[in-house]
Amino acid sequence: MGLEARGFLFGPSLALKLGAGFVPVRKAGKLPGECVRVAYEKEYGTDWFEMQVGAIKPGQRVLVVDDIIATGGSAKAAGELVELSGGVLVEYVFILELEFLKGREALRAPVYTLLKGQEEGLEKKEDEDEEGVEKY
Amino acid sequence: MGLEARGFLFGPSLALKLGAGFVPVRKAGKLPGECVRVAYEKEYGTDWFEMQVGAIKPGQRVLVVDDIIATGGSAKAAGELVELSGGVLVEYVFILELEFLKGREALRAPVYTLLKGQEEGLEKKEDEDEEGVEKY
Repeated sequence: MGLEARGFLFGPSLALKLGAGFVPVRKAGKLPGECVRVAYEKEYGTDWFEMQVGAIKPGQRVLVVDDIIATGGSAKAAGELVELSGGVLVEYVFILELEFLKGREALRAPVYTLLKGQEEGLEKKEDEDEEGVEKY
Repeated sequence: MGLEARGFLFGPSLALKLGAGFVPVRKAGKLPGECVRVAYEKEYGTDWFEMQVGAIKPGQRVLVVDDIIATGGSAKAAGELVELSGGVLVEYVFILELEFLKGREALRAPVYTLLKGQEEGLEKKEDEDEEGVEKY
């Protein structure tokens, strides 16, 4: 399962490599046919994700793929789509994790990230350096 | 080169298979860094596509990938991004072509499609059948 739009850059290639199917999750109103919908919180309000009904069969094992995990809101919503379909949420895979946002704590499956440790706001970090505050 | 968002589903896998790089084209304001921008016509007005500056080097051979060609407006704009960068537009690849919209006539490179021949409006087709009109 990959999330629109940047999860589409990696998800299908990974699925081919694993010999798995690929299920696209898109913003509301973009997928054809009957869909199941979940809400997720963004910085500026609520948004909706949709997946086609029947795209995941009960018992199927699902890996959720996206480019970045920040607060984990959209990844959590994707996990809910898996669970609503009776699928088994095996793991999350992200290219980059913004660790200071602790997004993985919102998720109900193990999280694998290629890159992590980006610091919270470079400008803020510089201010803190001037005051001699060690944040990490 | 793949177009947001459904071109992202096929483009990167095809690039891996070909041993080529992948250049994402996104709607305006979504790509980081300095971008080059072109306009394209949609049913309900003008929209903008962007590509990062330097993503295509002069002389590089480029294949443009998307899921569907309808009127060809977005594909034409993608081709303009290739040409603005000094790239060589080799071919277009689409999964599905809506032939009756003659989109390929708007494009300045050969067009390859996997599926074609969808009829113009199923309801309209039924009406025509009742009147005994052969459209194809």
